Amino acid sequence: MSETNCPKARKPKGFRDSFALQSLERQEMIATICNVYSKFGFDQLETSCIEYVDALGKFLPDQDQPDAGVFALKDDLDDQWLALRYDLTAPLARVVAEFGDDLPTPFRRYQYGPVWRREIKPSKDRFREFFQCDFDTVGCETMAADAEVCLVLSEVMRALGIDEFVIRVNNRKVLNGLMASLEITEPAVRLGILRTLDKLDDIRIEGVKQQLGPGRTDKSGSWNEGLHLPDSSINRVVEFLQCKMPTRRETCDAFLEFAAGSPDGVEGVNELKSIEQYLEVSDVAQEFVNFDPSLVRGLEYYTGPVFEIELPFEVKVKGKPKKFGSVAGGGRYDYLVERFTGKKVPATGASIGVDRLLAALSLLQKTKSEASLGPVVVTMMDKEQGLEYQKIVNELRDAGIRSELYLGDRKFKAQMKYADKRNSPVVIIAGSNEFEDGTVTLKNMFLGKALSQEVEDNQAWRKGQPAQSTVKREDLVQSVTDIINQVDLETQHNQA
Amino acid sequence: MSETNCPKARKPKGFRDSFALQSLERQEMIATICNVYSKFGFDQLETSCIEYVDALGKFLPDQDQPDAGVFALKDDLDDQWLALRYDLTAPLARVVAEFGDDLPTPFRRYQYGPVWRREIKPSKDRFREFFQCDFDTVGCETMAADAEVCLVLSEVMRALGIDEFVIRVNNRKVLNGLMASLEITEPAVRLGILRTLDKLDDIRIEGVKQQLGPGRTDKSGSWNEGLHLPDSSINRVVEFLQCKMPTRRETCDAFLEFAAGSPDGVEGVNELKSIEQYLEVSDVAQEFVNFDPSLVRGLEYYTGPVFEIELPFEVKVKGKPKKFGSVAGGGRYDYLVERFTGKKVPATGASIGVDRLLAALSLLQKTKSEASLGPVVVTMMDKEQGLEYQKIVNELRDAGIRSELYLGDRKFKAQMKYADKRNSPVVIIAGSNEFEDGTVTLKNMFLGKALSQEVEDNQAWRKGQPAQSTVKREDLVQSVTDIINQVDLETQHNQA
Repeated sequence: MSETNCPKARKPKGFRDSFALQSLERQEMIATICNVYSKFGFDQLETSCIEYVDALGKFLPDQDQPDAGVFALKDDLDDQWLALRYDLTAPLARVVAEFGDDLPTPFRRYQYGPVWRREIKPSKDRFREFFQCDFDTVGCETMAADAEVCLVLSEVMRALGIDEFVIRVNNRKVLNGLMASLEITEPAVRLGILRTLDKLDDIRIEGVKQQLGPGRTDKSGSWNEGLHLPDSSINRVVEFLQCKMPTRRETCDAFLEFAAGSPDGVEGVNELKSIEQYLEVSDVAQEFVNFDPSLVRGLEYYTGPVFEIELPFEVKVKGKPKKFGSVAGGGRYDYLVERFTGKKVPATGASIGVDRLLAALSLLQKTKSEASLGPVVVTMMDKEQGLEYQKIVNELRDAGIRSELYLGDRKFKAQMKYADKRNSPVVIIAGSNEFEDGTVTLKNMFLGKALSQEVEDNQAWRKGQPAQSTVKREDLVQSVTDIINQVDLETQHNQA
Repeated sequence: MSETNCPKARKPKGFRDSFALQSLERQEMIATICNVYSKFGFDQLETSCIEYVDALGKFLPDQDQPDAGVFALKDDLDDQWLALRYDLTAPLARVVAEFGDDLPTPFRRYQYGPVWRREIKPSKDRFREFFQCDFDTVGCETMAADAEVCLVLSEVMRALGIDEFVIRVNNRKVLNGLMASLEITEPAVRLGILRTLDKLDDIRIEGVKQQLGPGRTDKSGSWNEGLHLPDSSINRVVEFLQCKMPTRRETCDAFLEFAAGSPDGVEGVNELKSIEQYLEVSDVAQEFVNFDPSLVRGLEYYTGPVFEIELPFEVKVKGKPKKFGSVAGGGRYDYLVERFTGKKVPATGASIGVDRLLAALSLLQKTKSEASLGPVVVTMMDKEQGLEYQKIVNELRDAGIRSELYLGDRKFKAQMKYADKRNSPVVIIAGSNEFEDGTVTLKNMFLGKALSQEVEDNQAWRKGQPAQSTVKREDLVQSVTDIINQVDLETQHNQA
């Protein structure tokens, strides 16, 4: 086969591969998150990746990209359209509608898995396949469930070792109360106001005023036409944003004063008050959960409390410092199951953006490194002695030590390079000398990392380098274990 | 919204959902398997679920269903066809071809994940989405790697607690030697002979003779036209099948006598001999790994040794006893990466059929039950006391006990039924009496399972049933822990 006729080996745009450590770090993070979900009583659910398009519905959360759709195809089996799920909530709704009577009520599930969106412009921040990790309680009206969302998210952050986080909470009913008090009914204007609130952190109060008024020039220099609201309305929105007080209780009081005229608004504030009571008995500090008038999230989706985890540590974006930002979001939604059954089923929960959170952990150097050690590599200096090397690797594995025989056909030096690439803690070396003497030579790869670059031939390995030691064959397992424990200690020390 | 206009909540044909325990059992099985893979030095790899169709190629292993294809769609992003992966080997080939120079050589990876096949007739044994768990060593010629495949598979079986299994091993070169000695070159006839060998277990030697000769009537009563080979050829095939001896060594000797005239056959036998040496120094008993002339597998795919794990325990199929059969398969393949690079890259490995193996574990009652306990449920007898109940659940969680507040809006009896449905080990009950006395009442749900059906009102719970105990509030955590440990012990006892 000539190379020119071959297909090019490449993955499609917007997709990724994860190798070794990267893949394990994600897996360990997911396990930590799911353990917290489980501890709070949620049960695991796995749904099929493919659903009927009509069952998925068209609820893509990102309203700014109405064209960005799903991966869909028409199936010849029953002449219906199938699609890859775009989130884990639509399949949950399908499951609840399909199996409702057989499920416990409330139905409390967590789910982890990939979701797919047919992004038109995939980029390094916007993939077409990514991972979510959700938990939801379906069939519950009590605000204890919404408070629990905050408790779960806090516990997840703590379990991952993240000390600095803010769970922002708002209530769509309070926002509806604001709209009512502004006497604004036109959906496009409402949407415009909500979007402006959502940008408070970026554009500050001055930017909000401009955006609600004549308009503003953004960072890129483009003009954003404003909403041209009257000054009285603009002032009212600004007052609303100033409801954010040092404590959740005070914020509730400020909200209540503000929302007094709107039944919807009052109900929303009472819901937040109820959440606050549950947070208080659970000793949740204001520092970690606060009520925030500028939080909007999921414009058409949520009907009550909404949540977002924000990581406030700074990263450089195009050279400028910026908050790392949101890693999870959620809220209360009452209408998801209704599309199937005609019945309103109240539900609340949240979704963690796995890739975003993993990126944050990585920046904070909080990814777990337990699995970071490569295998012990038993080199094959003398191919004729393959079976003797096999005995060595068997012994190591029997002792529970991650290890492998070098299975390639390269020379000794390449074998050492291989072990280096695999992040091997110890390499086992044995040639005729060792076999005669009943010994093996061990190389501590971490100690010897600098030296290993200089070695040019087999003989150099024999000259008693500091990273190397020759031990009795029967002391093999103990000596390897000692080096690995030492390497582990050093790794821990370096991380501390 | 009227119910009649609603889409029907159902998953597509050939797809599945996994709930709670079922999902955890699979996850635990996968973790056990991947731990073994890791211990043998393999690193985890995760590839995207979607690939370019030309990169996947058309290598669907099941040759009996050439029409059964992949889920594919044309992508408007770059006007190319995309498809869901149908196995984990094709993406491995793409990764090796794409990143070859940056990867360690040999490249040793394991991967777990769903794969998709567009089955025309999905059934309860043939799904359109299912899970595989593979390990492969790419870039290795030594038979030590093929022997290792047997070691890994044995260790996986042991780690899962399966005592009775057979890893069948054959070599495609030995089969080629048979064909050479029969002087058969026509591909269709070769294929017919291999398929007949593959059926030995079902149709026995008599059936093989008939199928290679005039033909035979199968179990369903249908006539299967035979291959009409001359008697001399039929006898030779029968002789070949009789090469299976009590030990691997003897089988090799018998093979060698048989294959003496064919260079390909001799090479195949020498490979098996080499594997045998590695198995011998690793103390692998004949009982668990044997060389089997009737094993065929992957007709166009494999080029050397082939492997299959067979579970010999019997299950009833349509009332008749039958071996449970194959749960994993693999072999050596040299041409997979060549489609991209034009270069031959030798590789060997195996794939475990996750769903088949889980079904076997379930029949053998070997699924792990560690995660089988539901959460402790803190009931809400008195809605006004929600915050007090929250304190209770917080205490339990702080002590690491899986627990939840009942978050629905149903009456007490329904709350008990909910706890029952969740497989809750302990239910916490507190009403005005308890709050006044500074106590809580615990119900041991396993002890009380029979009784719980009869209870008609709240009062019955107060009458000091044997499964119930009232303890001091400060003894809550200890008392709950005691009951859970007791339940765990009983579960273990019942399983032993």
